[in-house]
Amino acid sequence: MKSYLKLKELFKQLSQLHYTQRIMQWDEAVMMPEGAAETRAQAMATLSGLTQKMLVNKKNQTLIAAAKQEQGLSAWDSANLAWMEHKYTVAACIPVKLTEKLTTASMNCEQAWRKMRAQNNWKQFLPHFNKVFKLVKETTKRRADVLQLSPYDALLDQYAPGFNQKKIDAIFADLKQTMPALVQQAKNKQSKEQVALPAGPFAMELQKELGLTVMHALQFDFNQGRLDVSHHPFCSGGPTDVRMTTRYQKDDFHSALLGICHETGHALYEQGLPREWIDQPVGVVDSMAMHESQSLLIEMQLCRSPEFYHYLLPEVKNKFGEQEAFTADNLYQLAIRVKPNLIRVEADEVTYPLHIILRYELEKALFNDEITLKDLPTRWDELMRSYLGLSTKGNDKDGVMQDVHWPSGAFGYFPAYTLGRLMAAQFFATFLRQNPQFFAEAAKGNFSGLVNWLHKNIHSQASVLPTEDLLKKVTGESLNSKYFLDHIKQRYL
Amino acid sequence: MKSYLKLKELFKQLSQLHYTQRIMQWDEAVMMPEGAAETRAQAMATLSGLTQKMLVNKKNQTLIAAAKQEQGLSAWDSANLAWMEHKYTVAACIPVKLTEKLTTASMNCEQAWRKMRAQNNWKQFLPHFNKVFKLVKETTKRRADVLQLSPYDALLDQYAPGFNQKKIDAIFADLKQTMPALVQQAKNKQSKEQVALPAGPFAMELQKELGLTVMHALQFDFNQGRLDVSHHPFCSGGPTDVRMTTRYQKDDFHSALLGICHETGHALYEQGLPREWIDQPVGVVDSMAMHESQSLLIEMQLCRSPEFYHYLLPEVKNKFGEQEAFTADNLYQLAIRVKPNLIRVEADEVTYPLHIILRYELEKALFNDEITLKDLPTRWDELMRSYLGLSTKGNDKDGVMQDVHWPSGAFGYFPAYTLGRLMAAQFFATFLRQNPQFFAEAAKGNFSGLVNWLHKNIHSQASVLPTEDLLKKVTGESLNSKYFLDHIKQRYL
Repeated sequence: MKSYLKLKELFKQLSQLHYTQRIMQWDEAVMMPEGAAETRAQAMATLSGLTQKMLVNKKNQTLIAAAKQEQGLSAWDSANLAWMEHKYTVAACIPVKLTEKLTTASMNCEQAWRKMRAQNNWKQFLPHFNKVFKLVKETTKRRADVLQLSPYDALLDQYAPGFNQKKIDAIFADLKQTMPALVQQAKNKQSKEQVALPAGPFAMELQKELGLTVMHALQFDFNQGRLDVSHHPFCSGGPTDVRMTTRYQKDDFHSALLGICHETGHALYEQGLPREWIDQPVGVVDSMAMHESQSLLIEMQLCRSPEFYHYLLPEVKNKFGEQEAFTADNLYQLAIRVKPNLIRVEADEVTYPLHIILRYELEKALFNDEITLKDLPTRWDELMRSYLGLSTKGNDKDGVMQDVHWPSGAFGYFPAYTLGRLMAAQFFATFLRQNPQFFAEAAKGNFSGLVNWLHKNIHSQASVLPTEDLLKKVTGESLNSKYFLDHIKQRYL
Repeated sequence: MKSYLKLKELFKQLSQLHYTQRIMQWDEAVMMPEGAAETRAQAMATLSGLTQKMLVNKKNQTLIAAAKQEQGLSAWDSANLAWMEHKYTVAACIPVKLTEKLTTASMNCEQAWRKMRAQNNWKQFLPHFNKVFKLVKETTKRRADVLQLSPYDALLDQYAPGFNQKKIDAIFADLKQTMPALVQQAKNKQSKEQVALPAGPFAMELQKELGLTVMHALQFDFNQGRLDVSHHPFCSGGPTDVRMTTRYQKDDFHSALLGICHETGHALYEQGLPREWIDQPVGVVDSMAMHESQSLLIEMQLCRSPEFYHYLLPEVKNKFGEQEAFTADNLYQLAIRVKPNLIRVEADEVTYPLHIILRYELEKALFNDEITLKDLPTRWDELMRSYLGLSTKGNDKDGVMQDVHWPSGAFGYFPAYTLGRLMAAQFFATFLRQNPQFFAEAAKGNFSGLVNWLHKNIHSQASVLPTEDLLKKVTGESLNSKYFLDHIKQRYL
């Protein structure tokens, strides 16, 4: 196993550099003073160039070929070696200079986005965006060639390995057809119900305390992680150093709280990865779809349930006192309010898939050369009107400019949310079948049954199996939209 | 200039990696959850190994030799090239294995020190200390050989380039002779004066606001820097991303405030370095003596002056209300209290140089083989009695074991504090001669005259000149103790 062990040593170093990059990214979003942006962009480009260089060293190709002939590799070792080869292949096809260019352009574009979005200034943002998009297309073409995939499939493979346009078209077809009507039905039903809005302001410090209480209840390990504030919530760092963020709104404690629930789902996944493999490719979960399945399972299936609000109510009163709106049922009703909204991250779980499908349609059109970037505002508005009956005309900050993902060069990423959402429903249905008493425990604030089940069946498995194999092993079925649609109908109709 | 430009590119990358390391170190002290310590230590070791490898590449030696023959280099370029060569030389002379051994021994010795210091157990600490000392001697010998210096001069060169034992002996002679008597005179004078202690607690948030107010007044650029909390105050990051820290004590706002003044001196230096050179060796200030000259100038010469407290008083009252102790004169008197103390980091500016000279004498004796480690407790006690009239007999935890520096392998470091202090006095005397109206302005909170002068004469010059040349250019004299002694006499007698 000499060659394989040499590769393990290399990938351990790469993992340490990757951890460094993620802490630096966290720092940029949470801590860094604005005036350091340029220095930081350059340092990140250099770091990224160095890791790329270490990975694509020709010697590694030889080592991989030799390792594939070696005896005595366990199933985990073999999966690890396969990931090493995949990583080498997709990295080796991109010249270092191109990666450096893309990193710099993305970071500058992200900074421009922060500024221009606040000013609703699509026109001034477009040149920055164009630079990134051109470079993404260039790298994508190279990936597509070496993986023998279409460009858009090569992008999808980055975030949802094992999925492609054909599979996703099939899985999404049902949703695209069913969801607009479901949205209407849910809206109609809810229009007859009264909900009371909590009256703010809610002090940030108390909102944070409430969030920390929930994180504790969900078994987040604070000895190896922390919660901070950033413009866009995320979960970064590494398994022993999880950096979760959220953003607080003065008049709405609910939004930050559910954001925290979502990110805690990611965090539990990271903290539950097998410790003996965390510095190897097989011990990491690069699949965003899988990662979202865990964050959405916690947020949507658990934390938007009536039982969760039964547990939460005394904690809410403890922080914010008594209010008419503070009943378990009213808070639950608020958490499942269906309201077509321009902003994806504020969307409810019924309209959310339509936000994703909108982006999926636009990405397909962009990468299949049916439209260009400058068509986006118009096309966005058209789809938004058709799916959700809303317009973004003249309001690009809440349309095409609302997310950081495209400005930072992440295309092919959004579908992973909905793939993850469908998996979350499918995993959770299996869990509930095996643990029918769970919600009675959850109402008392005991979530350990779920967290332990996720740890045993999913988190501890890291990337040893392809997503669909793991899904099949745990749930007995391939990915489908049945469990999600059942869930929606049960909760909303 | 082809070779020189190649070197510039390499050192630019090294500078970016160095910036990354400094942000990661800041994160470790300020943000990192405890449970990430091991992952972080490994990542930092990998990062440090990579940069070392990039620097000592044999190709660089060839490039340096070629660059030295190239035409058209400006004065800054030539100084830059000299620094490159110096950095290469001192890095290349130490085998990786030896560095690793020293790192391990230092870490073990530091751990032993933490434990044995608490137990006042010099005897059990000694074998660990011996191991580190032997390895330091070994690395020092290599540095000394390649730099053609004596071993102790090679150590001094790390922290105060340009200074050596002969020069320092001459500069310190005066202090050694004069200071013990000055300490007594200052003590006697102060023993007749009454000072009122401020009564806490002082809310951390208000202490921080006061610190930020002072930083603003001192023209700290918050667009390229920030202030946080750590166990030991420091200033890290980089010129466009300065990370200052302090620690707050509930019952003593004065201590954190003066700590902030000190670190702001470092920060202004960093923020004032010439932007076109910040990613090159000539644009950085590695000389700890020079860096301390700037922090001590701000802290000791400006912020412990009566005029500063005249400015500060309304700010203090604004934050903490009225108190008997809150008069400008009383706060000033508190800031200049003289009290011989066993602990260096708690010493005032009058006794501080004697703490340094004590260590300097012992380091010289050690590296000139006049004493061995086991003589240290006795020798420490003798010098402490002679300089400050205090004994450490049987109290090694507050004697030879008080600082982490020696256990962690840092010898030759302490003299830089006092060299910096003397420079601070010498620079400031020149400034005052040229700007006799300054203190009248300072009393109104206008420090721009000083900050601009430091920027023009010192900060913007980075490392283009040897320390003593810069000192001579600015003050017209070589380093001497006259201005410091004048200052002490004027303030304390």
